[in-house]
Amino acid sequence: MVDDDQNAILFGGDYNPEQWPEDTWQGDIDKLKQANINVATINVFSWALLEPRENVFNFEQLDRIIALLVRNKIKIILATSTAAIPAWIIQKYPGIARVDVNGIRQKQGKRHNACPNSPDFKRLARGLVKRLVERYKDCPELTYWHVSNEYEGYCYCDNCAVAFREWLQQKYGTLERLNLDWNSNIWSHTYHEWSEIEPPMMTTDLFDNGKPVLSGAAIDYQRFQSDSLLNDFKLERDVIKQFDQQHPVTTNLMGSQKALDYFKWAPEMDIISWDSYPMPDDSAAETAMEHDLMRGLKQQPFLLMEETPNQQNWYPYNALKKPGEMRMLSYQAIAHGANNIAFFQLKQSRSGAEKFHGSVLTHSDSVHTRTFKEVQQLGKEVTKLPMTLNQANVQANVAVIFDWDSYWGLENSIGPLAKLSYVKEVQRFYQMLYGHGLTVDLVAKDADLMKYQLVVAPVLYMMNPQAITNITRYVEQGGTFLTTYMSGIADQTDNIYIGGYPGPLREILGLHIDEHDARSAKQSVRILAMNQSEVGTADGVCDLIIPDTATTLAHYSNDVFYNNYATITRNHYGRGTAYYCGAELSESGLNYLMEKLANTAGLKLGTSPKVEVTTRATAEEKFIFIINTDNREQTIMNPVPLATSLLTGKESATKLVLGPYAVEILHQIL
Amino acid sequence: MVDDDQNAILFGGDYNPEQWPEDTWQGDIDKLKQANINVATINVFSWALLEPRENVFNFEQLDRIIALLVRNKIKIILATSTAAIPAWIIQKYPGIARVDVNGIRQKQGKRHNACPNSPDFKRLARGLVKRLVERYKDCPELTYWHVSNEYEGYCYCDNCAVAFREWLQQKYGTLERLNLDWNSNIWSHTYHEWSEIEPPMMTTDLFDNGKPVLSGAAIDYQRFQSDSLLNDFKLERDVIKQFDQQHPVTTNLMGSQKALDYFKWAPEMDIISWDSYPMPDDSAAETAMEHDLMRGLKQQPFLLMEETPNQQNWYPYNALKKPGEMRMLSYQAIAHGANNIAFFQLKQSRSGAEKFHGSVLTHSDSVHTRTFKEVQQLGKEVTKLPMTLNQANVQANVAVIFDWDSYWGLENSIGPLAKLSYVKEVQRFYQMLYGHGLTVDLVAKDADLMKYQLVVAPVLYMMNPQAITNITRYVEQGGTFLTTYMSGIADQTDNIYIGGYPGPLREILGLHIDEHDARSAKQSVRILAMNQSEVGTADGVCDLIIPDTATTLAHYSNDVFYNNYATITRNHYGRGTAYYCGAELSESGLNYLMEKLANTAGLKLGTSPKVEVTTRATAEEKFIFIINTDNREQTIMNPVPLATSLLTGKESATKLVLGPYAVEILHQIL
Amino acid sequence: MVDDDQNAILFGGDYNPEQWPEDTWQGDIDKLKQANINVATINVFSWALLEPRENVFNFEQLDRIIALLVRNKIKIILATSTAAIPAWIIQKYPGIARVDVNGIRQKQGKRHNACPNSPDFKRLARGLVKRLVERYKDCPELTYWHVSNEYEGYCYCDNCAVAFREWLQQKYGTLERLNLDWNSNIWSHTYHEWSEIEPPMMTTDLFDNGKPVLSGAAIDYQRFQSDSLLNDFKLERDVIKQFDQQHPVTTNLMGSQKALDYFKWAPEMDIISWDSYPMPDDSAAETAMEHDLMRGLKQQPFLLMEETPNQQNWYPYNALKKPGEMRMLSYQAIAHGANNIAFFQLKQSRSGAEKFHGSVLTHSDSVHTRTFKEVQQLGKEVTKLPMTLNQANVQANVAVIFDWDSYWGLENSIGPLAKLSYVKEVQRFYQMLYGHGLTVDLVAKDADLMKYQLVVAPVLYMMNPQAITNITRYVEQGGTFLTTYMSGIADQTDNIYIGGYPGPLREILGLHIDEHDARSAKQSVRILAMNQSEVGTADGVCDLIIPDTATTLAHYSNDVFYNNYATITRNHYGRGTAYYCGAELSESGLNYLMEKLANTAGLKLGTSPKVEVTTRATAEEKFIFIINTDNREQTIMNPVPLATSLLTGKESATKLVLGPYAVEILHQIL
Repeated sequence: MVDDDQNAILFGGDYNPEQWPEDTWQGDIDKLKQANINVATINVFSWALLEPRENVFNFEQLDRIIALLVRNKIKIILATSTAAIPAWIIQKYPGIARVDVNGIRQKQGKRHNACPNSPDFKRLARGLVKRLVERYKDCPELTYWHVSNEYEGYCYCDNCAVAFREWLQQKYGTLERLNLDWNSNIWSHTYHEWSEIEPPMMTTDLFDNGKPVLSGAAIDYQRFQSDSLLNDFKLERDVIKQFDQQHPVTTNLMGSQKALDYFKWAPEMDIISWDSYPMPDDSAAETAMEHDLMRGLKQQPFLLMEETPNQQNWYPYNALKKPGEMRMLSYQAIAHGANNIAFFQLKQSRSGAEKFHGSVLTHSDSVHTRTFKEVQQLGKEVTKLPMTLNQANVQANVAVIFDWDSYWGLENSIGPLAKLSYVKEVQRFYQMLYGHGLTVDLVAKDADLMKYQLVVAPVLYMMNPQAITNITRYVEQGGTFLTTYMSGIADQTDNIYIGGYPGPLREILGLHIDEHDARSAKQSVRILAMNQSEVGTADGVCDLIIPDTATTLAHYSNDVFYNNYATITRNHYGRGTAYYCGAELSESGLNYLMEKLANTAGLKLGTSPKVEVTTRATAEEKFIFIINTDNREQTIMNPVPLATSLLTGKESATKLVLGPYAVEILHQIL
Repeated sequence: MVDDDQNAILFGGDYNPEQWPEDTWQGDIDKLKQANINVATINVFSWALLEPRENVFNFEQLDRIIALLVRNKIKIILATSTAAIPAWIIQKYPGIARVDVNGIRQKQGKRHNACPNSPDFKRLARGLVKRLVERYKDCPELTYWHVSNEYEGYCYCDNCAVAFREWLQQKYGTLERLNLDWNSNIWSHTYHEWSEIEPPMMTTDLFDNGKPVLSGAAIDYQRFQSDSLLNDFKLERDVIKQFDQQHPVTTNLMGSQKALDYFKWAPEMDIISWDSYPMPDDSAAETAMEHDLMRGLKQQPFLLMEETPNQQNWYPYNALKKPGEMRMLSYQAIAHGANNIAFFQLKQSRSGAEKFHGSVLTHSDSVHTRTFKEVQQLGKEVTKLPMTLNQANVQANVAVIFDWDSYWGLENSIGPLAKLSYVKEVQRFYQMLYGHGLTVDLVAKDADLMKYQLVVAPVLYMMNPQAITNITRYVEQGGTFLTTYMSGIADQTDNIYIGGYPGPLREILGLHIDEHDARSAKQSVRILAMNQSEVGTADGVCDLIIPDTATTLAHYSNDVFYNNYATITRNHYGRGTAYYCGAELSESGLNYLMEKLANTAGLKLGTSPKVEVTTRATAEEKFIFIINTDNREQTIMNPVPLATSLLTGKESATKLVLGPYAVEILHQIL
Repeated sequence: MVDDDQNAILFGGDYNPEQWPEDTWQGDIDKLKQANINVATINVFSWALLEPRENVFNFEQLDRIIALLVRNKIKIILATSTAAIPAWIIQKYPGIARVDVNGIRQKQGKRHNACPNSPDFKRLARGLVKRLVERYKDCPELTYWHVSNEYEGYCYCDNCAVAFREWLQQKYGTLERLNLDWNSNIWSHTYHEWSEIEPPMMTTDLFDNGKPVLSGAAIDYQRFQSDSLLNDFKLERDVIKQFDQQHPVTTNLMGSQKALDYFKWAPEMDIISWDSYPMPDDSAAETAMEHDLMRGLKQQPFLLMEETPNQQNWYPYNALKKPGEMRMLSYQAIAHGANNIAFFQLKQSRSGAEKFHGSVLTHSDSVHTRTFKEVQQLGKEVTKLPMTLNQANVQANVAVIFDWDSYWGLENSIGPLAKLSYVKEVQRFYQMLYGHGLTVDLVAKDADLMKYQLVVAPVLYMMNPQAITNITRYVEQGGTFLTTYMSGIADQTDNIYIGGYPGPLREILGLHIDEHDARSAKQSVRILAMNQSEVGTADGVCDLIIPDTATTLAHYSNDVFYNNYATITRNHYGRGTAYYCGAELSESGLNYLMEKLANTAGLKLGTSPKVEVTTRATAEEKFIFIINTDNREQTIMNPVPLATSLLTGKESATKLVLGPYAVEILHQIL
């Protein structure tokens, strides 16, 4: 049973009692309390119930839901319900529905469907949120405000076109400047009036593969839509803050999704929260990277707003989580910065798109299911964790730069390899670090890098003056830096730097590149160290590096005509060292590179790629999470022998034998 | 040459003389009579000729076509010509054309293109059909009325939206009831006015994969569209019946197609007819199952309205039928209940979408082609078959439940495995039965089951009170029943039964299920009998069965963590036995299961999976069809030794040696 | 450096200085002259700059660009800038933008976006071109007029519908004739008013796979759109000719693209020019065939208007060209009839869709890149080639018939094999010829065939009276002719000839065909010579040939039931011989066929499939191009020993050892 202690770590999830007969509510709560649930996220999609017609509000059911939770001492994360527009609103104001990238106006249905620039949406959302805040701000169990839900997707309507032109006028001032920065003399795109500019979409400037002619226009539209949705978030947040300065405001983000530049969102949010849904075959590194990105947004702990206690619903094959796997993933989240655990959802829906999505209470409605018991056990553990953990931040000595501008710019490019995926390439290098036991911060390109022993910037396609200065200074002052193919290519309006890739990074890297090949996986090429031993293979983009001051560490084999060109180089610059990796390396090639980097940066590498060791610390104490991410037993040397186990209360041994998905949390007082 | 006997079995096909110069008609008929053709289906697509502008009719050409057939003593199946709308109608009444699932209004072209709820369509169709019936009802060769053609597809126009709302009002009475049954509080879908309800389509409630948010709304739209097209059929049928009570009315169905719930259509049709187009690689079982479904609609013999005498036209590779293959497939149709043979078409078109579709008279226009000679030979045989065969129904002691509600409900589900195909899963179990020599009826879930020794209900996802009672009573009273994964999941508005799968079937099965895995084909798991011997493999949906009173017959191997869970169980309930198969079994696993079922049900299994033995019988006589469905010789023991062969007139031997695609029809007087 | 000789062969490419600051222009020119560039194609996409609003023109920048080129003695190919419509025009005249095949009106963006039947487009284009010609016709460096760019794609707007009806009235005179020729009684398509006819598109008569019901209507729409775009070309050409009769007019074509029947375009063009972009894995034969088709349009030398000096931009993997590969491909173009070499582009764009497209000056902006140096070396060579080469035409003794009617008709067919690709099937037989060292002309089906020793007509699906006469006479008078499956099937309105395939070619071939199988690649069948030895395999379409007077040379094996049917036949007709190949043969099967053909036609076959030997000749001299198309060394016997090498100036040896991609040009005075 949940401890009544108000200071227990939050353990809960989404709860939608409005889908169920009211006489079942208390029974559900009784069961959920057995599972140690102490918080519920409610009211995520209730606008149609709360406001059945314009300016007519009905909070009676919500009052009863909140009273139920209060009565049962369940904390509340209260959502604003604006993430799906009621049918009556769309019928009354059809322009509130989005126009899709094909130019087709949507009608009522699905969710996340409001045009972000609709004045009707803004007015109606403001009205609803105002009433919600006024009514519930003093609720004793209220813990967080949860604005909307999983902001995503773009709109291409005429409202958005008008707002885009205003956004562009703000940014460029004159059409002359815009034409210059967009290089719009290409294909007769020159604009003579602001009104001539249309959103880049399938009926205008996007090809069948979704890529644009004018990449400057395309990335500006991405920035504009990200800003537009952020404005909607800020609108709701500001209404909340007007009446309630006490409870923090968040919205649940979605990891490395493409549409929104979360680094611009983070400063506007009191706390980051996000929904973690690894695919069944995702590696532990892929999940870890997403957590690190979400933590990196504010470089602070975050809320895990959603995970599934068992199988997902939306994947081609929604495999069951294995015994212990959900627990392992939950602790992995905490190790990487989560200050809570929350599930989507607490009670499984009887119908609707997500009816087969895992839940704490399943269609069996039983407390004897495997899922329920695993949740219950986890709840028992995590609600006992010390609250000081919440102040402890993750200790990383390596940074990976993640950059939505590069994400967009790279994936807007048609050549040299249309299917190049930004996130997959970042994952490649994150995996290299994670697989060697390093703890990583994902940071923006203008973040403070000085505290890191190593900074890795994969496919950092798009630069700007601040980033150039920031990275250059980091190396100058002694940092160890790695960047890769397709980095330093374009400026912030996606105009390519002239003078040889990678433009503004040439000097610190001590090299230049005139050509990059693009090879399919079937055409992989062997990569050789200077002693001609093979260190791995590569495919995809392969740079033909010409070292200026850099030293060649590996080169292509005679599988290709450019076998004399370098694949990996190292350059001393200022007091630091800049590495360059010119090809999409296989795992063994990455291992070779990792050893070089570790030597330069003075990093100690781990020994088990399957066991993650991550430390969260405050000035006073350390929490060392040791997680076997694998379904087979693993043994490692204890990095902090004799430290107390938080889960067993006992002293830990010198050697740790970890069963499948086993977790150990060791505690050190400093 | 065709016998003049009016009682010969019908042997014919579609005939479109309006595509050809009139001076070629008699020559064609002369050739067709050489092929023993005695019936022609005409006037399927002639509206534009019959009614060149509104209320102006021109029947002169049709008069001459009919006169030609009458003169040549060719029977007539007369179609109503409403399956393709003339250009002038669509130009005059654009709203008669369908709006597609993307919201795009169609214009003139293709066929099967009328909005089923268009008042203009109804008025114009009524006018045309009335004149046709008045004019031709007394034609001496008239045999059947053929309404429209291959009804298919849905419309999403505003007319349909209005009619849908009326249909919903009829069904639910109040919006409160609808909101409850649709569980529409999900994602703020609650409706406050009937007018707010839109057809679920891509611009409203369907995702990119075509699956809905509100599955209750989606399945209701499927029912509504099926009903709407049925109403169009009934409209034409009623006009016919008003003037002609003598000739039976049919429309050609299309087997296990998805759009229309044929069990609701069947009672409205005087006789079932359908178009059989197996793909080149389809198994004999797949074709047999489609015939059994069509026969099962009314549990009566049917008309084979179309098959191709040689290659198809619409498949990726339209392979030739091998020598004897068309004959074999024709007899297979008769064995499964066809009372005729008919081809699409009698004379191959010179152009148009189907110009390369097989025909009796091909582009060679010759009576010396292989196709022509095979047709001729078959015609000679079948027109000699005794007319009493038409009264003989197929004798099956096994039933398979086929259910459009489950078809729709299952394929509307996003999880646990989006690509789960209803028909493929039914085929899996039909193949198990057919491959062991069993004759099967495909029946609705509320059909009379008591006469069957075994009832199989694959993926019977959606239940309703009558079906629950029906199945429960069948088992109680001694029946042997098998159901599978994804059965008994949801009620008739697609709300999942609470309390563990398979809901209302739990008790008769003596088990419950909290979890089902979803595995790709690459992740297949071995299935073990209780003696730990491997009986087969499984992938796709894998239930974790927890037997309550059931006995475990097979379980998962340690390929998976749930190796202790049952895969196949058996439960004694009342006087009967209920089996459950919890995973998509491989062929050997199904063989294992079949043996168990046969033991319980007292069924004798066949020995040759390639030779089909099917019996049609009246009270007085039996027709035993023995068909080698394979291209290689097969030998079997004669199930009715000494019985007379209808094809040779001789006594049959004890052992039957059947050449490639060979057919034997043995006759017994009772 | 470029020779100032005005008679040097043109060596240049597209140049877009309007994308760059004016102060960089002269520097670029200085570099380009180092690369021996002597011509620039300019003004391809500058309409928005030249006419910023209606009837307001601004030629100042273009004046300066032209002055720059004149000052630097760079010749000019001057484009008319009408290939992309400025935003202001589309905003002012929305009807100028195309409606796509789905019925969706486009807005501003991309390029090649004007409705070809828009009166606004015609008026505005005429206005612009008139001013361009008046202003620049006397420019001393003006060499060619380049109308628009890469005409492509269709429009489906209401303007086009109206124009289509007029085009049809011109062609058919009466609706009765049209209904008859279109066989429109199929599926009730009969038209009673011209206005009822709509363009065949997705909302009308095309299926999801893009194939039509009425193939007569579909091919007429293809002809109509090809004619419509040709009318636009002629409109601009006529404006040019009105003011300038001196400079030849061209537009850059695109090889075997589908949309436009270039045989109808060629007579309207002063000289053919085209853009050659082989994919990285394309064979030398595929590239050669495209050149031969472009030369075949007028049976004259042509301009290579675009090739990439290094990697392409639009392919999935844009591989680098290997050292020597661009030079080899350039000489291959010249060998096949190019009178120049031109690159897209001279200076790589900083942004836009083609920013990673190879260029002479790359983003490195350096004269030290591999690309620059290879271009420079090639320029040095080709600008020294004698100008008499330009008068020398390619000497081919084999013709392959290429036919857009067959291209369209075949690919409009749904059966027997929907994915049959016209170009791939022509390539199959071209490869057979090319791989055996034969030089080939690609010609229209009504071209003069008498001069060829062998004429090959692959998949010549659609015939017309002239073609029948032409081919028949060729064989009668002693020619050797080969045609294949899917030839002689349909007349010019796509109505199939009755009486056995291949209709009007039956007599010269001495055979008929009632059936053709369609087999997937997995179902390939062995083909046997008459001595039962296997000569190869086949799949796809397989004809069941019945020889009448023809001799069987190969037949199917017992892999198939039609093993007695011929696969390859030969027939003597008149003084000639007609071969028929009834199946999609593998390479070895084609080799077998080639030997037979060579024997009959008296052709000497080459020995190295990797070394191309092609001769261009005038009455006075011969240029023998010997090209190693492979990346490995090849050795061949010199076909013209002792002839002078144009590249080295030396006498050539008896045996030629050719390094990777090596080229030799031998010169003979006759």
